[in-house]
Amino acid sequence: MNLGILGGGQLARMLALAAAPLGVRVRAYDPGKNACAGDVCELVNGAYDDQASLREFAKGLDAITYEFENIPADTVDMLAALVPVRPGFESLRLSQDRVLEKQALTEAGFEVAPWRQVDDEGQLVDAISEIGLPAILKTRRGGYDGKGQAIIADPADASRAWDSIEGRPAILESMLRFDRELSLVAVRGVDGAMAYYPLVENEHRQGILRVTVAPATNVDTVLQHQAEGMAKRLMSSLGHVGVLTIEFFEVQGRLVANEFAPRVHNSGHWTIDGARTSQFENHVRAVLGMPLGSTEARCPTIMLNCVGDLPNISTVLSCPDSKLHDYRKEPRPGRKVAHVNVCDCLGDRAYELAAKFEIDLG
Amino acid sequence: MNLGILGGGQLARMLALAAAPLGVRVRAYDPGKNACAGDVCELVNGAYDDQASLREFAKGLDAITYEFENIPADTVDMLAALVPVRPGFESLRLSQDRVLEKQALTEAGFEVAPWRQVDDEGQLVDAISEIGLPAILKTRRGGYDGKGQAIIADPADASRAWDSIEGRPAILESMLRFDRELSLVAVRGVDGAMAYYPLVENEHRQGILRVTVAPATNVDTVLQHQAEGMAKRLMSSLGHVGVLTIEFFEVQGRLVANEFAPRVHNSGHWTIDGARTSQFENHVRAVLGMPLGSTEARCPTIMLNCVGDLPNISTVLSCPDSKLHDYRKEPRPGRKVAHVNVCDCLGDRAYELAAKFEIDLG
Repeated sequence: MNLGILGGGQLARMLALAAAPLGVRVRAYDPGKNACAGDVCELVNGAYDDQASLREFAKGLDAITYEFENIPADTVDMLAALVPVRPGFESLRLSQDRVLEKQALTEAGFEVAPWRQVDDEGQLVDAISEIGLPAILKTRRGGYDGKGQAIIADPADASRAWDSIEGRPAILESMLRFDRELSLVAVRGVDGAMAYYPLVENEHRQGILRVTVAPATNVDTVLQHQAEGMAKRLMSSLGHVGVLTIEFFEVQGRLVANEFAPRVHNSGHWTIDGARTSQFENHVRAVLGMPLGSTEARCPTIMLNCVGDLPNISTVLSCPDSKLHDYRKEPRPGRKVAHVNVCDCLGDRAYELAAKFEIDLG
Repeated sequence: MNLGILGGGQLARMLALAAAPLGVRVRAYDPGKNACAGDVCELVNGAYDDQASLREFAKGLDAITYEFENIPADTVDMLAALVPVRPGFESLRLSQDRVLEKQALTEAGFEVAPWRQVDDEGQLVDAISEIGLPAILKTRRGGYDGKGQAIIADPADASRAWDSIEGRPAILESMLRFDRELSLVAVRGVDGAMAYYPLVENEHRQGILRVTVAPATNVDTVLQHQAEGMAKRLMSSLGHVGVLTIEFFEVQGRLVANEFAPRVHNSGHWTIDGARTSQFENHVRAVLGMPLGSTEARCPTIMLNCVGDLPNISTVLSCPDSKLHDYRKEPRPGRKVAHVNVCDCLGDRAYELAAKFEIDLG
């Protein structure tokens, strides 16, 4: 079978690597000539609104998926008329807009932090007085890894925050005092079958994921089942096909949903070495209508993100339990260039290992 | 780093898949436009004696390796003047010639079955009377998966056997009554460091590997260490860099070496899912001068070869412990087109699982 991927970054690269053993040929589409997925699959260059190039790209494909959710709606419409685009339009539409996303999460039964829609500076002032501070102002559309966001700790910060997001339609979210961040990677097949990886614990710095501990420690089965049940409702209502990831704050034993991504996710990278089937393989299986694979963890695993620079490769490779995943991207501050999975390893060793591998956790 | 591979079949394909997470870009060289490695890496087409194409292929590479040992010596000489070719000339020279191979195995301390060099039909008759029957006549050079071989059970078969190998320089080997077939996959780094996977048990039909059980059951540590010690001597004497695989007959608890291959090997395919580091990753690490990875088994694993046809994909993917490795090659009788690794699985289930997956073990 032949799978197209919109985007040619590390997620497309890892999808292509997972697709090959399934006998699936991958073609990625990216504006960049050096997009790193191009090392391991066919790469078609073009802009995301270049209909002629997109039409050429779609030829002979059995399905098209994507590695990022900010794809122009016109592009999806045009492609969907030629080839199934999975996950579908609804998953994209809701995840592209933080207001619709919060509503969808709420409808699926998830608790979310207090929030208000903010379309002008006056509404921002009102929202601050309604939900209180600290709060975080985020553009409704676009933005990732902490971009397009501003923290407001004091009412006097409102104007500066509004300017920093260039006065775009936004959402103000209450910043909860949380105990930790968790996420759930789930997958749904064309036939509606669903599977869930165990909840994992994530640490962010400057809005960028740095460490995942999988499975998260001290998660009782009630919490896991609760998360799965709501993910099931969300995916079913979206008619979602493929991997979907939900990020949570844990607040006094409760899960408060923050956002969801209709795709493979950085907090699922541990699954390449730590689960029976990786999130990448399961996404490929799902979007091509194949049976889903087991989401069971093979061992406790930690994932260390390499942001801005590669780790000490020789040290990583000399450690029997660690697996390098180098995306072969030009190092640049704030850029994710690799990750290291350490198998059979408990979370309390994350900082010791990061220091050993010369990974700056920020 | 950039790695070149002579040959673009499934071994090159799996090497390329293992190389990518190490940040290594792969370029394969093969006469076939549809060589299956081309799905997952750059593919250069050319004949193995086309010096101009080979020179172009070698540009910018840090090392060149190969997926088969029958490479013309001139090709290796020419390439080695441009880029390190690993494993080196000596590993190729000895493994290309069954007489030199037996001598090298003997010098490294391995027991081998009685054998005689056979250059004409008269020598064949003498050899039969000296080492007895049954015996197997094999061409000294070329031949794989049972090709270029003829079994001689009766002295009257000698002439027909000689004709069947077209009177080429040959070797007559005594056919031992063996208890089972085992193999050892070993690897040696540029710095001389060595590592060994556990001995595995192999089943062949019509000269083609069908099943590997890893690790082999009932292997005591003495036998494992003995095999490792001799492999160490062999690799050291060859100045070998990369994976090397030795095939054995087990005869009343003794290991009798049959042949070695200076490359990744079908009996090491289980390592993709069943070992901490796959043979493919370790080969890439070795030939590029990186530290070797752990060769420890993660779990008991069986490998089922799909010869001639693909298995029932849906059944394989529905089994939580099985992993499909489809080479995306046109099915054809006798051709290896895929393999299935089943993790956490003991060898006695091989036939039951093959039946379930609709894999014909021959």
